[in-house]
Amino acid sequence: MFYLTAKRPLQSQASVPSGKSHMEGVRGKCLPTAGKPIQCKAAVCRKAGEPLVIEEVTVDPPMPHEVRIRIICTSLCHSDITFWKLKDPPACVPRILEVIPCGIVESIGENVVEVAEGDTVIPTFLSTCGDCTDCKSPKSNLCTKLPFKISPWMSRYESSRLKDLNGDVLYHFLFVSSFSEYTVVDVANVVKVDPLLPPDRVCLLGCGVSTGVGAAWRTAGVEPGSTVAIFGLGSIGLAVAEGARLCGATRIIGVDVNPDKFEVGKMFGVTDFVLAGNNDKTPSQVISEMTDGGADYCFECVGLASLVHEAYACCRKGWGKMVILGVDKPGTQLSISSFEVLQSGKSLMGSLFGGLKPKDDIPVLLKKYADKELRLDEFVTHEVCFEDINKAFDLLIRGECLRCVIWMKK
Amino acid sequence: MFYLTAKRPLQSQASVPSGKSHMEGVRGKCLPTAGKPIQCKAAVCRKAGEPLVIEEVTVDPPMPHEVRIRIICTSLCHSDITFWKLKDPPACVPRILEVIPCGIVESIGENVVEVAEGDTVIPTFLSTCGDCTDCKSPKSNLCTKLPFKISPWMSRYESSRLKDLNGDVLYHFLFVSSFSEYTVVDVANVVKVDPLLPPDRVCLLGCGVSTGVGAAWRTAGVEPGSTVAIFGLGSIGLAVAEGARLCGATRIIGVDVNPDKFEVGKMFGVTDFVLAGNNDKTPSQVISEMTDGGADYCFECVGLASLVHEAYACCRKGWGKMVILGVDKPGTQLSISSFEVLQSGKSLMGSLFGGLKPKDDIPVLLKKYADKELRLDEFVTHEVCFEDINKAFDLLIRGECLRCVIWMKK
Repeated sequence: MFYLTAKRPLQSQASVPSGKSHMEGVRGKCLPTAGKPIQCKAAVCRKAGEPLVIEEVTVDPPMPHEVRIRIICTSLCHSDITFWKLKDPPACVPRILEVIPCGIVESIGENVVEVAEGDTVIPTFLSTCGDCTDCKSPKSNLCTKLPFKISPWMSRYESSRLKDLNGDVLYHFLFVSSFSEYTVVDVANVVKVDPLLPPDRVCLLGCGVSTGVGAAWRTAGVEPGSTVAIFGLGSIGLAVAEGARLCGATRIIGVDVNPDKFEVGKMFGVTDFVLAGNNDKTPSQVISEMTDGGADYCFECVGLASLVHEAYACCRKGWGKMVILGVDKPGTQLSISSFEVLQSGKSLMGSLFGGLKPKDDIPVLLKKYADKELRLDEFVTHEVCFEDINKAFDLLIRGECLRCVIWMKK
Repeated sequence: MFYLTAKRPLQSQASVPSGKSHMEGVRGKCLPTAGKPIQCKAAVCRKAGEPLVIEEVTVDPPMPHEVRIRIICTSLCHSDITFWKLKDPPACVPRILEVIPCGIVESIGENVVEVAEGDTVIPTFLSTCGDCTDCKSPKSNLCTKLPFKISPWMSRYESSRLKDLNGDVLYHFLFVSSFSEYTVVDVANVVKVDPLLPPDRVCLLGCGVSTGVGAAWRTAGVEPGSTVAIFGLGSIGLAVAEGARLCGATRIIGVDVNPDKFEVGKMFGVTDFVLAGNNDKTPSQVISEMTDGGADYCFECVGLASLVHEAYACCRKGWGKMVILGVDKPGTQLSISSFEVLQSGKSLMGSLFGGLKPKDDIPVLLKKYADKELRLDEFVTHEVCFEDINKAFDLLIRGECLRCVIWMKK
C-alpha cells in the first residue's frame, strides 16, 4: 500500500485519467451568452437564519482573470450553517452562500489562459495566484496576493458580479457563491478537473472533505502506525479519518455524542469509538487510558472552541499535535492556559482547507479517488433538486446527512 | 560553519574534553559524611516574597537512585522569582528554591552507577529515567516515569531529604533545590560534566540558557536563513538568540521595553531591535512590516500570557511557529481566538527545557562551549557570595543582571 506522505513535491505529480467528456465539442467555443449578463435562478440569503429565497438574479460577465461558471451541482457544509445563522459581521445580507460546487466554464474574462469555455472545474475558496511567496513555497497554502477572507466581494476587484432584478448588489461568499445556476469566480480560485469524473463526487473536494483529508495528510503529517483522535464525526471528522487511514494510521478513535456515528465512521477507517457525555470520565480521560498517554494527533472538528481544551488534553505529551478544523464564531477564545502549552511538548495548529494547495493537491486526491483509494461516494447520503435547497439545510442541521448534493438541473 | 540541526541522533554524539580535575583523587572515594545526615547552610524561603533566610539545615543521605551533591555555585532565574512571589499552590513554604547549580557528588545511594563520589555534575529539573517511551523516543524530552511537576517532594519517593534544625520538613523545588550547601537529587536529574570546565559557566545549562538555546534548536528547529523574533531580551530571550544564531538564522529581531537591551542582544546575534511601547504601532505591526509578513519563528520569553497574542500575530502566516517559553502564573489563559488559529497556518507550541533531552543534549552544548561556538561567558554579569543571596534577587528583579552566579564558598 502506498500511503499519502506529508512531503510535498515542488511540482504536482498528479495526473487524472482523460477520456470522452459530455462537454466535448463545447470546450473553447464562445457561447452566445459570453460577455453579457445572464439572468438565472439563485437561492439568496436575505435574512440570517431564515430559509433561502429562490429568485431570479443577474450574473455579470467575468472581469479580467475571472471565470463565469454554470453550476452542475453543489453541496452544503456546516460553515455555511454557521454563516447563514450569524447576524453580525462578517455576515451580511443579501448574500449567495456556498462553496462546494462542480461546474462548467461558461465564459472567461481577459487574461485567463488556465481554463477555457467548456472546461469542468471546481471552485475553491482558497486562492492560488501562483506568483506570491506563499504560492511558490511548499510550506504554505495561503496565497498572499488574494488572501483568504470572509469578504462580501470577489477577491481581486473587491466588487460583486451578482445583482437582484432591482439592480441591487448581492454579496459573494468566500469567493465562490455557488447557490446559483451561474456564478463568477476568480481564475485563482478554480481547479480544472477531469470531466469524466462524476460531478457530485468531485464537488466534495471543494471544501470539507479536502479539509479533513488534508488536515491529516498535509497539516498534521500523520505517520504510519500512529494513533489519531477525532472529535466530531460529521463529514469533516470522517474525512480526517479517511485521510488518517490513507496516511497509514493504525488506530483512529472517533468521539461523538451520537452513538450511531461509529458504524458510519468504520467506513472511513475509524477503529474505536468514545461516546461523549455518557461517562463519568471525559473523552480525554478515556482516550488517555485507551492509548496509554494520549493520541499522537487530535483533531477538533466540531467547531466549538470549548472542545479545543478537551482535544488538547488527550494529545500525547511530548509530541502530540492538535489540529483545529471546526469553525466557531469569530472571536471565541481558546480555553488553554499558557502554562499547559509550555509544559506539555504538544503543538497546536489550525488547518485552513487542510493545508492543501488547491491546484496541486486536489488533482492528487482526484487521482486517488479514480484509483479507488480515496473514498468519496460514501459521503453522499442525500440528493435534492435546487428548488428544495432548504431541505438540505434541515437535513444537515438535524444531523441526518453527511453530504447532501444539490443538483441545479437533473 | 556547522549549524546546529534539529535532527536528533538516537545516541548522543557528544564528547567533552578530559583532563586533570581539581577533584582528582576524590572520585569514587567514600567520604566520611556518606550515609549520614549533613548539617550545612541553606537559604530557606519561609514566606512568599520575603528575603530568604540563611539557616542551618539537615540534608539526609540519598535514598536508592539518589545522589547527594555539594553545591559549588548556583544561579537564579525568573521562574524562581515567580515561584518565590507566589502565595498559592503549587507554591509552598518553607522551601529551598533554585535549579541552576554545578556541584560535586558527595555520596550516592544504592543502585546509582551513572555517577560516583567526586564527579562534577549539574542537576536538571527535567528527569531522564532512560527506560520509558519518552526517554527512548527522539521526539520527546518529557520522562513519563519521573514526570515534570512543581512538587514539594523528591521525584521518585515523594518525600523530602531536607529538614530544619527543629526536624521540620523543608520542601524541595523542581527536584533540585540548590540554595543549599548540599542537596539531594535523583540520578535521573543529574548530568555528569567535565570537571575542567568552569562551574560558573556549566551551571547555566541547568535551566534558562539551555531552555532558550534548545527552544530555537530543538523545539522550533530554526532553519538557516530564517527570520526570528524574540519577545523579551532577558537571559532566556538572549539564549534563544544565541540558539537561533547557532542554527544559522540570518535575521534575529529582539523586542523589549528597555532600549539598552539591543547592545546586549548584539553579543548573542540580535540583528534588529523593536522598542515595545514606544510606537504608534504594536511590535507585531512593526515586525510584520520589517519582514514583509512576519517572522518565521517567534518566541515569547517574558512570561506574560497576554504577550502570546502579540507574538503570535507577528508570526509569518502559512508556516510561522510560535514558541512559548516564559512562565506565567499557572491558570493564565491564552488570548488567542480559535478562528485565528484555524485560518493562519501558524503553529503554537511550548518549550519545556527547550525540548532538550538533558543527558543527551547538554553534553552537545558543553562541547560547543568548549569549542568556543556557544557563548556562555557573556551571560554572567554578576557574582555574589552565598551570604548575599538576596542581592541576587534584587539584581534580577531590577533587571540589572543577566545571570548572577552565587558562589557557596570562594
